[in-house]
Order: sequence, then C-alpha cells, then structure tokens
Amino acid sequence: MDGITLTPLKKILHPKGDIFHAMKKTDKGFCGFGEAYFSTIKCGEVKGWKKHNKMTLNLVVVSGEVEFVLYNQMGFFNVKLSLNNYQRLTIVPNIWVAFRGIDTENILLNLANIEHNPNESDNLKLDSFDYNWSKS
Amino acid sequence: MDGITLTPLKKILHPKGDIFHAMKKTDKGFCGFGEAYFSTIKCGEVKGWKKHNKMTLNLVVVSGEVEFVLYNQMGFFNVKLSLNNYQRLTIVPNIWVAFRGIDTENILLNLANIEHNPNESDNLKLDSFDYNWSKS
Repeated sequence: MDGITLTPLKKILHPKGDIFHAMKKTDKGFCGFGEAYFSTIKCGEVKGWKKHNKMTLNLVVVSGEVEFVLYNQMGFFNVKLSLNNYQRLTIVPNIWVAFRGIDTENILLNLANIEHNPNESDNLKLDSFDYNWSKS
Repeated sequence: MDGITLTPLKKILHPKGDIFHAMKKTDKGFCGFGEAYFSTIKCGEVKGWKKHNKMTLNLVVVSGEVEFVLYNQMGFFNVKLSLNNYQRLTIVPNIWVAFRGIDTENILLNLANIEHNPNESDNLKLDSFDYNWSKS
C-alpha cells in the first residue's frame, strides 16, 4: 500500500538489559519531530478508525504485540508488530488506522512530525469499514 | 543539581488503554531531535557510569521503575521514575549517569538531541564513585 513503510529496527543485546532503536533523524521516513507519546491498548480491545490529515506517524511497539490495520481506496493492509517482529511502521496522512492489543500489556510509541491537534484528524466508528477482526 | 530538570508528564486515561505524553517540540528541555531509542534494565542490575559530552538526554520510564543516580562536583542526585511518578528527566551534558532496574520489566525511552556516537561519551566502572546502591 502506498504511503506505508516498514523499517526493520536494530536490537542491541546486553546482559544487563537490551537496547532497541526507534528512530534517527537521518532515517528514511523521518520528516521532522513534533511530539512523542505512548499509546497502550488492552488485550482484545481495538482503537480506531482514525485518519490524520497532516500528521505522519512513526509507530514502534516496545512491549507486547499490536495488530495494525490500515485502510484506503486500495484496500486493507495489516501487520502485527512486537519485539519479535521489531519494525517501525511509518504512515503518511490520509490513511485510516485502527489497532488491536494482542498481548497482556501492549505499548506503542508514536514519533509524530507535528504536535497533537484534534482538528487535523477524523474519526469513524469501528464498524464503518468491513474488516473481520475476529479471524486475525 | 544544575543541569537536571524533572517535568511532570500528562497521562490521559482511556478505557481501551491509556495514553502517556513523552515530549513535544515546544516543551522546556527540548533542544532538537537526533535519535530515539529504548533501554531496558533488568531487576537489580545497574548500568553506569556514563557521561555524555554533547548529548542532552530526555528520559521517560514507560514500564516498570528505574532509579537514576546523577553525579557531578556538586554531589549525587537520585530519583525513581515509573508510571506512578511519571516525569521526564532532562540531563544536560557533562553529568555522570547510572541507573538501576527495580521492577521485573523496566523500559526507558531516551529522546536525544543528537544521534548516538560512542566518541562523545566517557565510561567509568560502577565503583568509581562512592554511591551506596544497596541502601536505596
């Protein structure tokens, strides 16, 4: 799907505790820093749908496992991210996004290119698009 | 201690999973984005001492609890951060830093103003400064 990039991230193993890369300013997909925040999603819960009109998202799952489902006129795209499939998901504006918590504790970081502004995003109810969450 | 700032961060409660602020580009303490990475520290382990000569650290503990100990010619400063004491710890260059994992899983985010470069930091063994880790 155009506008979506998955970038494998480096994990540096250390006997006292590992280190996990998230983003460098020289990385592909970086288009400025506006705000960093964490979202958590409880097991089995789904947040969405939300479409940002200006914000580019850079999403990294640092705890648990999260299924992301993206939707535009080309159809659906889905990916499950965790420390076992440790990649950064870059999403440009104008793509509908929803995500589901799979593990007990699920934490994702969003490194956004602009600060949060409720006026630059649209929201729709979860049943607005015909995605079968139960089968995944 | 000069050069250290603690900034309380907003937690937005949500029935499907809470949201935790980390940093906005308009926040005090923000001095450019170079790299974001996660460090983990196992329970009872201590990483340190490390002194950055150019990097300003912005540290946020998103899982577990971490004790940070900072040292310069003024003496020691220590603080324990977690989601219960949810603050961002900003540390300017030229301060010695060590940190200890307190909980089972401990994850901290560093929002650094420059990209990682091993040549801009110094390391000393943990017993180089007389801090009593056992009592804390």
